Amino acid sequence: MHAAPPLNSESATPGGAAPATPKRDLRRVDIHPDYWYPLAWSREVKRGKTYGTTFAGEPVVLYRTEAGAVHALEDRCAHRQVPLHMGVVDGDGIRCGYHGWTYDCSGKCTDVPYLGKERLPNGVRAYPCREAEGLIFIFPGDPAKATDDAFPPLGSVADPKYKTRRFGREVACHYSFMHENLMDMNHQFLHRKQMGQMRARSLGRRSGEGWVEVDYTFAREAGRQPIGEALVFKERRTAATEQAKDVMTIRTQYPYQTLKIVSGGGTLVMDLWICYIPLDKEQRTNRTFGLLSIRKPSLSVLLDLAWPALVWFTERIFREDREIVEREQLAHDRQGADWNHEVFPVINELRALLVEQGAPPVRLVDRRFALLPHTAAGAD
Amino acid sequence: MHAAPPLNSESATPGGAAPATPKRDLRRVDIHPDYWYPLAWSREVKRGKTYGTTFAGEPVVLYRTEAGAVHALEDRCAHRQVPLHMGVVDGDGIRCGYHGWTYDCSGKCTDVPYLGKERLPNGVRAYPCREAEGLIFIFPGDPAKATDDAFPPLGSVADPKYKTRRFGREVACHYSFMHENLMDMNHQFLHRKQMGQMRARSLGRRSGEGWVEVDYTFAREAGRQPIGEALVFKERRTAATEQAKDVMTIRTQYPYQTLKIVSGGGTLVMDLWICYIPLDKEQRTNRTFGLLSIRKPSLSVLLDLAWPALVWFTERIFREDREIVEREQLAHDRQGADWNHEVFPVINELRALLVEQGAPPVRLVDRRFALLPHTAAGAD
Amino acid sequence: MHAAPPLNSESATPGGAAPATPKRDLRRVDIHPDYWYPLAWSREVKRGKTYGTTFAGEPVVLYRTEAGAVHALEDRCAHRQVPLHMGVVDGDGIRCGYHGWTYDCSGKCTDVPYLGKERLPNGVRAYPCREAEGLIFIFPGDPAKATDDAFPPLGSVADPKYKTRRFGREVACHYSFMHENLMDMNHQFLHRKQMGQMRARSLGRRSGEGWVEVDYTFAREAGRQPIGEALVFKERRTAATEQAKDVMTIRTQYPYQTLKIVSGGGTLVMDLWICYIPLDKEQRTNRTFGLLSIRKPSLSVLLDLAWPALVWFTERIFREDREIVEREQLAHDRQGADWNHEVFPVINELRALLVEQGAPPVRLVDRRFALLPHTAAGAD
Repeated sequence: MHAAPPLNSESATPGGAAPATPKRDLRRVDIHPDYWYPLAWSREVKRGKTYGTTFAGEPVVLYRTEAGAVHALEDRCAHRQVPLHMGVVDGDGIRCGYHGWTYDCSGKCTDVPYLGKERLPNGVRAYPCREAEGLIFIFPGDPAKATDDAFPPLGSVADPKYKTRRFGREVACHYSFMHENLMDMNHQFLHRKQMGQMRARSLGRRSGEGWVEVDYTFAREAGRQPIGEALVFKERRTAATEQAKDVMTIRTQYPYQTLKIVSGGGTLVMDLWICYIPLDKEQRTNRTFGLLSIRKPSLSVLLDLAWPALVWFTERIFREDREIVEREQLAHDRQGADWNHEVFPVINELRALLVEQGAPPVRLVDRRFALLPHTAAGAD
Repeated sequence: MHAAPPLNSESATPGGAAPATPKRDLRRVDIHPDYWYPLAWSREVKRGKTYGTTFAGEPVVLYRTEAGAVHALEDRCAHRQVPLHMGVVDGDGIRCGYHGWTYDCSGKCTDVPYLGKERLPNGVRAYPCREAEGLIFIFPGDPAKATDDAFPPLGSVADPKYKTRRFGREVACHYSFMHENLMDMNHQFLHRKQMGQMRARSLGRRSGEGWVEVDYTFAREAGRQPIGEALVFKERRTAATEQAKDVMTIRTQYPYQTLKIVSGGGTLVMDLWICYIPLDKEQRTNRTFGLLSIRKPSLSVLLDLAWPALVWFTERIFREDREIVEREQLAHDRQGADWNHEVFPVINELRALLVEQGAPPVRLVDRRFALLPHTAAGAD
Repeated sequence: MHAAPPLNSESATPGGAAPATPKRDLRRVDIHPDYWYPLAWSREVKRGKTYGTTFAGEPVVLYRTEAGAVHALEDRCAHRQVPLHMGVVDGDGIRCGYHGWTYDCSGKCTDVPYLGKERLPNGVRAYPCREAEGLIFIFPGDPAKATDDAFPPLGSVADPKYKTRRFGREVACHYSFMHENLMDMNHQFLHRKQMGQMRARSLGRRSGEGWVEVDYTFAREAGRQPIGEALVFKERRTAATEQAKDVMTIRTQYPYQTLKIVSGGGTLVMDLWICYIPLDKEQRTNRTFGLLSIRKPSLSVLLDLAWPALVWFTERIFREDREIVEREQLAHDRQGADWNHEVFPVINELRALLVEQGAPPVRLVDRRFALLPHTAAGAD
């Protein structure tokens, strides 16, 4: 009797409805680049300033002109590869802080101070960039696909009937652990100290091209309703029957995730939009960007008053989730493979979705070359 | 003239009596799992609580039931591989802190809260576990060999005529450096500040199946007798001749080590039992568990009074030893191989013993596979 | 448009005069060992004390006898490879702090306390060692080449007409980045906060066997002359025409570098000698030793009074340089290759020089063996 490795774990899964085992290790599937991804909060990119970050190991510099426009370039001077975010914003462009090479917002090199204009070298990559609802998005994949249609709806953040908490932080795990954590509401045991003893009941799941979703109701088995939860529902629940009328729907619409709670009366009381951005090349860390919209009560100042308590509550939940998913990643690191033994059908569907929609695997021949010294093109 | 690498160091060894050179790098020999090993002090595993540790990279959770029994399981939920020590003790078993999967003390999965009992998945590995003299032991190897006979004697700790100091800490080196450090008493120069100038004289060595031992006498060449030493002998020595009557015997009885001092009068005045537990998979760190038993004087309160001084003294000795063996490990890490150039015959015997008694080498074919991505069984 | 990798970057270089692309990755070229290299400041090696350091990953112990002589040995006891710098100076030699093995200043083992003199094992490597102008040099390569003629001139440090600042620190980059940083004065933009807006103009370059040098004049485009600069020239400049009379010459005379400023009047006003010592085996870090000699004014106390300001100024310049070259190294680490896209001809000459004069490449067969476990000679 041994937890690992579960040689035929999927075929032995009690929930026999699970899809066939994907052959790729989910934790090594890169996120697909052909989507709009948030890389920063608007407030982090100030006028006339740069902001350096990464997407899946690729350095990206965001900067805002004095006029307020935001642009995104490869964060690496074409000359000596130092980060452009160490330079200075110059009109619509950016000037490298080392030798002063200058790039416009399309990435074209427009000035090398000690070189004739007719001899200017190539520039750097520019990313399609959009700002919306306090988030700055880039499109790291094929720019031809960076259409308005591809831009995701952001829940209820723009609806004045809702108040939105913007939250997030870095989590040291592959983005797939984040999706599974949120979608599997059987993990309420993890939050027993915050939530009391809640029992989730799955009502059923649906799926389609690029998405999977599941509905839950909840019943309190023991303990009292926490304040944070009461804030969302604007009332104190006492009977499990009332509670059971609320339906929580969690959906992964690749690569985004949403969680909606509709009350028994048919009102959307909570609407969460969340996205997980891989930071490093191995995609073993992510930065989470969440928009948590709560429907305002008729006297909306009440929600404002209660806001600090809600922040405190959600932070504690998030901290518990973060700790456990980071432990999952550590186990994967140690084991070198995904030993997951999943028995919950919707999670198996989600896992298959994340593999199918993810970036195609790097061909083995490329991997091999990456290990050899001195073969990189252009090395000198 | 160069210290490294000593291509034919062993054959060029002046002490020609040394055994033939073993071909395996001693620092890469894993400890043999078919022994009882202490993993924690009893006080570290409280009633109703868990305690997570590792043995040679394998995560192990120890827990104590409310009734006081101690059990040891693989510290990894069969579901998502998070550590069980983050969960809660539940009767004789343990409940994972994430989704609430529960295991009994044999490792069998007895509950998945959202799954029918008839569909329960496999469990986790359980280890034979025993508590003795303030230590909790497990048997990480073949459970069929975890007999009472295999349980080691623990020196004089159970003898009321002795008072025992329990000590230990993590040391960042392979366990073999610990054995060599203790057995080679020619390293008194290291402790010159604590001990004064002592000269060890080897009286001879003996060996048998699974053990090797050596006797020493000591002579003070300069400096005064330290308090700590006087505490052990209950008297102040002034003449080297008196001192020479005491005999120290150091023995490695694989995988344990003992150091006994018998006074000129034939009394066992000090009795040390010590064991080194590899923590990481590469076995480049160990946790030391030591039981240092000192024979009580007729007025035993004197030993109690002197105890803090003895603790202070042994801690300083231990700190010096730790610093130097960690340097040995660093040199091995840097060099990638063991360049040891040993001239002391008993140490060469000890080294051969540790190789012979250690775990068999991992076959090269396995090593190679371990380096390839995506080949682990059960990855999905 | 993408900064990397510049597949044909050199051939596309606007400055077509650049030499042909060297095939080796400059950042993987080891420094050539057949030169005198400073490893410490004299004041760091006190009488009767040891000083442990490394040259390109090789541990070296420097020690000074009570009589004042300095010696350099391999910092690794032939017995168990612990650092000799943890031992004690003993006459002209050094005694290991573990078992007391003793080596004389030629590296010969002269005592193993528990072994007959006739059976003494081999010793450790000794390095030719010289002390000059407050620096301790060793010759890590072929000792036969460690002649007086090979010892480098150290600028104007010995000339009483100059006052010298000794400076340096560890920088986490390959030594080649240091050479390029100093020689390419087009990087004045980096120091815009310290220096104001200076524009360097290259007057031409020269090269020969083992060296390359370039002359610059400077013109201030905006901002005021900094105090630190005025200290060097002993006067305040206001007109760019005057400034243009000063000529700065930067020379890499492998493996050393110098920077000299000759005023319009023909006086050598500043004379910098600098050397970059790789610390680790991969040579991705270096320790810089610099001798910055400033010509004293007729009233030399004025220079003494101004000295703290000069120290402050040079430290700030050095800090900016350090930060940017460490970013270059990080980019190389991330990319696994040198994507440098150089357009300045003298830097391309310098790069070619550093490759040609550097240590020959390690043969690939050796590299491969280094990756295999258990093949190191002498492992046991």
